[in-house]
Amino acid sequence: MPHQADPLLITSLQNPKIKQAVKLRERHARKQTDLFLIEGYRELLRAVNGGRKIDSLFFCPELYLGSNEASLIQKIARTGTALYRCTEAVFTKLSYRDRPDGLVAIAPQSHLTLGHLEKQLENQHNPFLIVAEAIEKPGNLGTILRCADAVGLDALIVCDACTDIHNPNVVRASVGTLFTVPVIESQGTETLQWLKKNNISILAATPHAKQEFTDIDLTGPLAIAVGTEQLGLSPQWMEQADIQVRIPMYGIADSLNVAMATTILLYEALRQRKRQK
Amino acid sequence: MPHQADPLLITSLQNPKIKQAVKLRERHARKQTDLFLIEGYRELLRAVNGGRKIDSLFFCPELYLGSNEASLIQKIARTGTALYRCTEAVFTKLSYRDRPDGLVAIAPQSHLTLGHLEKQLENQHNPFLIVAEAIEKPGNLGTILRCADAVGLDALIVCDACTDIHNPNVVRASVGTLFTVPVIESQGTETLQWLKKNNISILAATPHAKQEFTDIDLTGPLAIAVGTEQLGLSPQWMEQADIQVRIPMYGIADSLNVAMATTILLYEALRQRKRQK
Repeated sequence: MPHQADPLLITSLQNPKIKQAVKLRERHARKQTDLFLIEGYRELLRAVNGGRKIDSLFFCPELYLGSNEASLIQKIARTGTALYRCTEAVFTKLSYRDRPDGLVAIAPQSHLTLGHLEKQLENQHNPFLIVAEAIEKPGNLGTILRCADAVGLDALIVCDACTDIHNPNVVRASVGTLFTVPVIESQGTETLQWLKKNNISILAATPHAKQEFTDIDLTGPLAIAVGTEQLGLSPQWMEQADIQVRIPMYGIADSLNVAMATTILLYEALRQRKRQK
Repeated sequence: MPHQADPLLITSLQNPKIKQAVKLRERHARKQTDLFLIEGYRELLRAVNGGRKIDSLFFCPELYLGSNEASLIQKIARTGTALYRCTEAVFTKLSYRDRPDGLVAIAPQSHLTLGHLEKQLENQHNPFLIVAEAIEKPGNLGTILRCADAVGLDALIVCDACTDIHNPNVVRASVGTLFTVPVIESQGTETLQWLKKNNISILAATPHAKQEFTDIDLTGPLAIAVGTEQLGLSPQWMEQADIQVRIPMYGIADSLNVAMATTILLYEALRQRKRQK
């Protein structure tokens, strides 16, 4: 495999490989190819450690920020990944970051369903889940993933997705936790049925609820449902929720952003679940 | 006041008023003039309700998103503010948002010191404060303010500021809560001395602490100290803290961002403080 020991040096932005990678910033190109971009050392490391396959890797040693990039590349190369060394000028164009760190990969997307989740939860008697309905901002979805990773959530179920979970900004905002938290793609009705069938309580946060989230028992099988930034959860989810809670707010503002609200709910659930053990 | 009833229509980007406003996006121009920008209906409404003076107001009815803009402008006009109607093309350039909503104001900065805080707390026997040391990203400072508003924090003390609290992105990310939460500007050493003198416990979050934040009594006079995104709190704060706590993390990632960590700590403190009452 000579291209791995002595990878091609890409010096032109017209190179078809570069053009393909740049195209993957767009949703329709990701959908068409079922590929997506992973940029950054930390993100790529977490993808590889999470068992993700990497198709192509673009690298530019002049831009490395640390000293472990070469060994990560070697590890990736062993799996048969195509390697492309780029000049600084080419890499800077390829990167969608302000401060590129010299690593961008193309990888196949991974798609998990409720069927996968059911299998994953076979020996887990107290599931701890989030349902994110129609979140619009990739940054919020990434932040929710980061918190989901931190509390050891079983899975994030993305319903009726507005944001493509393979959007480069989800990868970035999640700091690679997209590769450590199972993300299930599903539809609302199907997910509601599945949760009911599996006796998993659905908790919906809404400013109109009477009970505060800290007054509710969050220690059992639990799915915290959160909705769009603008409108919150849809009526379907509000009506079918087993528990409605509110996050108390004493200031002038009338809402927290969805990532903050989710963070607050997840850490309260974690606090209660740890006490119970 | 004829210019209020029939305000000047600005049709040129070369208009000196427009140039002045655009300049205020830059820190040195804000520092030089002690002015700053407030963009957006919600932000401006909160500024006015918070008693802030507005020097000049640029507006463009073609871009309004709601129906209350005119009455807000009337209210502002009564305080002697100079009004400038802009064409859509001019306003779009003036705005630093993706979706301008037709309102941008220039206002004098407000600067509060520990002296102001001392006065504010005269009848408050159980202060609840955040100290934010050297936060770099305006978005994080804005998110922290939003949460501070929600939990009814007494004040946010910004020490050794990297980010100018009057940065337009702080105003935006705070959704105007910059105008509802008292923000004190101070230096680290001075703040530490002040907190010690006033018997306010300093809580520092660090991954290296033994105790988890939920196992600590957070019901007394409290200052939660949070540090830079990259390095956390400086040694000065870590050493002088009365309590060190960690936020438990069970995933692959080793840290939460500073705004998420602050949100988690603030809501746990709120939970405990409410129980106590």
